[in-house]
Amino acid sequence: MSKVLRIVPLGGLGEIGKNMMAVEYGQDILIIDVGVMFPENDMLGIDLVIPDWTYLRDKFDRVVGIVITHGHEDHIGALPYLLREMRAPIYATRLALGFIENKLKRQGLAKAVEQHAVQVGDQVTIGTFQVEFLAMNHSIPDGVGLAIRTPAGLLIHSGDFKFDYTPTQGVGADFGRLAELSREGVLALLADSTGAERPGFTPSEKVIDPVFDEIFREAPGRIIIATFSSLISRVQQVINCAARHGRKVALAGYSLLENVRMAQKLGYLEVPAGVLVPLDATRRLPPKQVTLLVTGSQGEPGAALARIARGEHRDIDIVPGDTVILSANPIPGNEEVVARVINKLFQRGAEVIYPPLAQVHVSGHASQEEQKLLLALTKPKYFIPIHGELRHLHAHARTAKAVGMPPENIFIVENGTVIEFEDGVGRIGERVPGGYVFVDGSGVGDVGPAVLRDREALARDGFVIAVVPVDQATGEPIGQPAIVSRGFVYVRESSELLEEAARRVEQALLNNGYCSPRAVEMTVKDVLGKFLYDETHRRPMILPVITEI
Amino acid sequence: MSKVLRIVPLGGLGEIGKNMMAVEYGQDILIIDVGVMFPENDMLGIDLVIPDWTYLRDKFDRVVGIVITHGHEDHIGALPYLLREMRAPIYATRLALGFIENKLKRQGLAKAVEQHAVQVGDQVTIGTFQVEFLAMNHSIPDGVGLAIRTPAGLLIHSGDFKFDYTPTQGVGADFGRLAELSREGVLALLADSTGAERPGFTPSEKVIDPVFDEIFREAPGRIIIATFSSLISRVQQVINCAARHGRKVALAGYSLLENVRMAQKLGYLEVPAGVLVPLDATRRLPPKQVTLLVTGSQGEPGAALARIARGEHRDIDIVPGDTVILSANPIPGNEEVVARVINKLFQRGAEVIYPPLAQVHVSGHASQEEQKLLLALTKPKYFIPIHGELRHLHAHARTAKAVGMPPENIFIVENGTVIEFEDGVGRIGERVPGGYVFVDGSGVGDVGPAVLRDREALARDGFVIAVVPVDQATGEPIGQPAIVSRGFVYVRESSELLEEAARRVEQALLNNGYCSPRAVEMTVKDVLGKFLYDETHRRPMILPVITEI
Repeated sequence: MSKVLRIVPLGGLGEIGKNMMAVEYGQDILIIDVGVMFPENDMLGIDLVIPDWTYLRDKFDRVVGIVITHGHEDHIGALPYLLREMRAPIYATRLALGFIENKLKRQGLAKAVEQHAVQVGDQVTIGTFQVEFLAMNHSIPDGVGLAIRTPAGLLIHSGDFKFDYTPTQGVGADFGRLAELSREGVLALLADSTGAERPGFTPSEKVIDPVFDEIFREAPGRIIIATFSSLISRVQQVINCAARHGRKVALAGYSLLENVRMAQKLGYLEVPAGVLVPLDATRRLPPKQVTLLVTGSQGEPGAALARIARGEHRDIDIVPGDTVILSANPIPGNEEVVARVINKLFQRGAEVIYPPLAQVHVSGHASQEEQKLLLALTKPKYFIPIHGELRHLHAHARTAKAVGMPPENIFIVENGTVIEFEDGVGRIGERVPGGYVFVDGSGVGDVGPAVLRDREALARDGFVIAVVPVDQATGEPIGQPAIVSRGFVYVRESSELLEEAARRVEQALLNNGYCSPRAVEMTVKDVLGKFLYDETHRRPMILPVITEI
Repeated sequence: MSKVLRIVPLGGLGEIGKNMMAVEYGQDILIIDVGVMFPENDMLGIDLVIPDWTYLRDKFDRVVGIVITHGHEDHIGALPYLLREMRAPIYATRLALGFIENKLKRQGLAKAVEQHAVQVGDQVTIGTFQVEFLAMNHSIPDGVGLAIRTPAGLLIHSGDFKFDYTPTQGVGADFGRLAELSREGVLALLADSTGAERPGFTPSEKVIDPVFDEIFREAPGRIIIATFSSLISRVQQVINCAARHGRKVALAGYSLLENVRMAQKLGYLEVPAGVLVPLDATRRLPPKQVTLLVTGSQGEPGAALARIARGEHRDIDIVPGDTVILSANPIPGNEEVVARVINKLFQRGAEVIYPPLAQVHVSGHASQEEQKLLLALTKPKYFIPIHGELRHLHAHARTAKAVGMPPENIFIVENGTVIEFEDGVGRIGERVPGGYVFVDGSGVGDVGPAVLRDREALARDGFVIAVVPVDQATGEPIGQPAIVSRGFVYVRESSELLEEAARRVEQALLNNGYCSPRAVEMTVKDVLGKFLYDETHRRPMILPVITEI
């Protein structure tokens, strides 16, 4: 049997999102996290991106378990898709399991899979691996790191982490345990790189309390707060602050309602009696007693905040005197839509408070000094930066070098590049698939680069279709083609242009006389393309359709 | 004659870009700046956005002059479009006029318009207005503010500004003159809000020198620097630094070559003999002696840096040992494409240095403390924040209130809202058009919301066209429709789906029997839309085309 330990990154290395990794020793494979990524701005029409687990497909029977570090979408979101193809026991802390349960229920998969609730400190044997769940801090309760003992050595996986000496919920990271593990000798540390470009130490969640207090004290009317629906500790802070200032809290947005219900049920949220009220009950309260906690902090067009900003929310209208707090930073790529929501809220007369104008949000990810601390505590032989675009992985590697990690012991790899350890020595292994699988509507993986290129071309200049009638018997083009166009010019004001285009095509085909369907198509493309470019300097997609008459 | 002074913002208020304003007194109209804006991410296929000057169109004969504050695209870019419709003398400093000349030459408009070169301190009478050009600092040499004396009072317009005590080129802002003007009594200050969310003082351009020096000293091979092609002072810094470290500098990118040539010709750039070399001369030099200054700091796909990152630049290939510096911040909305370029450069083996990892760029816009200083120096009665999205205008207003400006003397308005002054008292006036005019190819203003909505729908789910043959005589549908689709599904793998769709349409039309063309179209849309949604959960644009046979 092979004595090689293989780390197979399938997501999250070279991107922010869709975290997934396989750890392989002998016959056994352990999966860590199965997340989704939200599409980038140029992934047109795509709903979600999930990891490409092609590599695992002929090895599903070797998977001994799926370990989840925490309940964020970029760590659990692709589970329903994976579980359509395979089954393995899931290990996660209670809140993450609660969120997973909600997710699987919607897919009718709730009872389909064995689930193990674990807690910090637990050591679980999963096949050949012994997995210990480590206390870490992150922007969701019960986020854990992993110590994975394998026959080839001890791995430490940070999960998403920061170090917070004064977390608002739960206990802080267990520095002592991390240090103890270093005594055993850590073969490799795999650590979260999201915040690797940020110098210093990420502030504690605690710093938000006095900022909220001041806003709650000064606000002349309602307070509307948008944050991540999974950021249960922030929800707790809002509820506590509202209670301190004699305000009620109502929720708007499906995912927020669902997550808060689950967190309450599992004991992750303590709500003083009477503070949480239904949305419609707030209408009868004086504005100074109202706090609305809403979804949409990323400017998502369908979520509560964007609908409020557009004046399209069923229950919530901005009135002068309202104070809106964006208790979140825009995820890279969302800056423009978030800014637009802020501008629209101002337009409607709200006062808007957002970072960096006030410290109403702190990151859930470690900055450089915390990354150094984790390296110092665990003293790994090898270092693998994970969770980040290539620039974050490089920044993290630079930090590791700065505290003495030898460059040759740092592996900067992207999804699909296997790292192997044998006899305590690491090396870069083979390449396996590690790209994007697009979810579009009910289709998984059927939309690829060709369709996206078409969407891009259509988005740029629209299309022009020429329906060319040809004689059924002779194949000769007869009469003028019908021109149909969208997204190219404003059709109502361009009838002359399109009529002239039709005439040109007819004339060209007439000049050609009989020719093959292929030649007809070529002529239509050439003539139309050139004429329309000359007239408009645009290049619409041109499609000839030949109909036999 | 009316004694009302009117300020008519046509661009730049409620957005970053396409700055343009009209100042009106009696019969005379003065235009300040005529800029373009680069399209936002959801303005699909649009090349440029220019101001809507509909308001001026029946008043062009009353325009006494066009004053330009500096040579950036968002202040001069729309001049060629305006000058197609009207003529008026242009007043600008020499470098701005040089850039304008390049621009007008390309349009064959170079000799078409009277141009006046002005310099800091000049006082020019333009119709009823007396305009004084004020020394300010910005990220281009010779940027000016304006003191505009009108019969109704004195206006101060900051232009784009920062205060830099140690500018790398030219003189600093003239604090004394600003203070003197305050003695005359300033009716209203109009000031740049771009940096209004940033606390503190924007660092001097000077801080970049030691950072560059360290990078130039340590870099093991070539240095490739991307910056704004109009940022002539940065070009000067790079040239000086290269000279200090025994490196040559070569340029890549059309706008950079053009701007550097113009700046040299006008004496804005001092190049030590032998330092600037042609691009191909660098091939014969040791890498340690090479600096390449390139365009594309905003990740523009067609510019030099993005082509280098994709491995598609004709002359420049990344080799290990190359150090790339992004000497620019991403303009809001460009974060994602800039990040992608950085990631690709890492992928090719370059070391990449970018803000905030190192201070290789400083903003050209004032931060809050500088905004306070300008208010304190000019002591205006009224304050109008300009140049910024609504959130920036609000942030700037908040700063003004913090230093004692009465809230009722601050006018936060967006493009198209006129501000009037009469007998020293300001008020909000009428609304005039102040929206977007889209330039797409050679079309100006012909692409509007309807076309953009189509492009958006096409970008999301593509289109499906059904060409339905009907009997010429009876109008009855005969035979199966031809289905054409792009951007919806991968056509090669979806022939079954599309064939089934064609069958369903045929069957539905058959069941209907004869009906009007309109009814045929409705049936096709209904049947196809429902079937395709059920099968794919996507909603492509559906277009029926009826052909008579």
